[in-house]
Amino acid sequence: MSNAKISRLVRLPAGPVDLTALDSHAKPGFKGGKAAGRAALAGMGSELADLQERLWAEGTVGSARRILLVLQGMDTSGKGGVLRHTVGLVDPQGVRITSFKAPTEEELQHDFLWRIEKAVPQPGFLGVFDRSHYEDVLIVKVHEWADAAEIERRYDAINDFEQRLVDEGTVIIKCMLHVGPATQRERLQERLDNPDKHWKFNSGDIDERVLWPAYRAAYEVALERTNTDVAPWHVIPSDRKWYRNLAVAHLLRDALRAMDLQWPEADFDVDEQKKRLADEAPLI
Amino acid sequence: MSNAKISRLVRLPAGPVDLTALDSHAKPGFKGGKAAGRAALAGMGSELADLQERLWAEGTVGSARRILLVLQGMDTSGKGGVLRHTVGLVDPQGVRITSFKAPTEEELQHDFLWRIEKAVPQPGFLGVFDRSHYEDVLIVKVHEWADAAEIERRYDAINDFEQRLVDEGTVIIKCMLHVGPATQRERLQERLDNPDKHWKFNSGDIDERVLWPAYRAAYEVALERTNTDVAPWHVIPSDRKWYRNLAVAHLLRDALRAMDLQWPEADFDVDEQKKRLADEAPLI
Repeated sequence: MSNAKISRLVRLPAGPVDLTALDSHAKPGFKGGKAAGRAALAGMGSELADLQERLWAEGTVGSARRILLVLQGMDTSGKGGVLRHTVGLVDPQGVRITSFKAPTEEELQHDFLWRIEKAVPQPGFLGVFDRSHYEDVLIVKVHEWADAAEIERRYDAINDFEQRLVDEGTVIIKCMLHVGPATQRERLQERLDNPDKHWKFNSGDIDERVLWPAYRAAYEVALERTNTDVAPWHVIPSDRKWYRNLAVAHLLRDALRAMDLQWPEADFDVDEQKKRLADEAPLI
Repeated sequence: MSNAKISRLVRLPAGPVDLTALDSHAKPGFKGGKAAGRAALAGMGSELADLQERLWAEGTVGSARRILLVLQGMDTSGKGGVLRHTVGLVDPQGVRITSFKAPTEEELQHDFLWRIEKAVPQPGFLGVFDRSHYEDVLIVKVHEWADAAEIERRYDAINDFEQRLVDEGTVIIKCMLHVGPATQRERLQERLDNPDKHWKFNSGDIDERVLWPAYRAAYEVALERTNTDVAPWHVIPSDRKWYRNLAVAHLLRDALRAMDLQWPEADFDVDEQKKRLADEAPLI
């Protein structure tokens, strides 16, 4: 099976979602193991950097196109790892990462999309949401911080919002980093066992963990309801960190390739500028 | 000569500045050539990433410390290259790059530091200014968009501003990427000769280039007036791209090392959390 098919294989099919039926330890579309996977990711670096620079270049001459990569997943699913290892492959100048934490008092006084709107990427950028507007139908639903009618309203609001972003020239790549509860347990245990990682742990992590079945149910509904043609979901098996990083890189690369990005043509007279440079007087 | 001395060697001494006396083609503190320089930079990646993560970790537990890297230089001096090759070595999650373009109408209605204030890094971040408040005493002075008294006021305002940032916990690393006019000419010529690089060129570039002596004079005064103990300038010989990238990496690494960053201690009872994880009921 060709690795070129990874993007297609991780795409969530339409219809009801059963996350327990999706193997979080799988590596769809990739035959090799960790070493081969890491090498494959490193091997994508120069193409990714080239494509991202073309996107950036387009943005400098008036194109409206941009990419929004949405990363969702339970604690320890590896959103930070994807930022470091996959997003880290391209020029940081063209990347805008927004990490959404608990909303501030001011943010809570607005519609849930208010703070999201302010973070959408500008033309030419690769915007990355580390958590996103989906928290407003996940943690909010699990804790019943909004009633059922409001959650219901939000699925449609999200679809309308994403449709508008796409209409404006945004390519949206939505990734749910899918870990199993046993993997999360291992990773939390590692954080507790290693004093250098204690800062990554907080005592609320286990409070949320025991709500796992409620989170799973909330994810399943949210994924189904917002798995649109213009902004489909990808469920990335994430028990293997290297596969997770590689799969997101494939999605990013394939999205950039599909944009058919060209270097912008000169908007000035090239020969005239060459002549100016050739004819100039000494400068110092 | 040990490479560990690069940071010290590129530091601008106090007193009047004569940029023509500083060799833009030099590689102070580094014996090897391009291949060795690139290898040395790559070899710094893991330490830089580790130190940056410690800075980030500190920020999550209430430390006010942060870094601001200021990149100034003439067109083609390589601010973008430093972002890609040096800043690109650390986790993009902890980096906040601001590229300052010509001020907007709104920005022009405020003091020159208004837009700068909004971009200063938050605790734990490595903030990078690609151009900066120094444009307000460089291009503005060269084009006489402000009178002499206003420029004079700005040097002091900049020093006060930077002192305040330092008092708040910011380590400021100021770099002037020093290229010679012949190197700029080569790089502009390359952009004109290669259609894939035409987008990087604009016809104003040569208009600015012919003002080189005026820019040099403006830089010399600005560097002298703002070369403070709390926020000193470094003049990075930048005719060799690999040396430029390596020297900025040394400054960044040495600044991070000097912060003596420790992994934060747990603010929770580790054994209690381990017990909770060990005792939990099955989740699915």
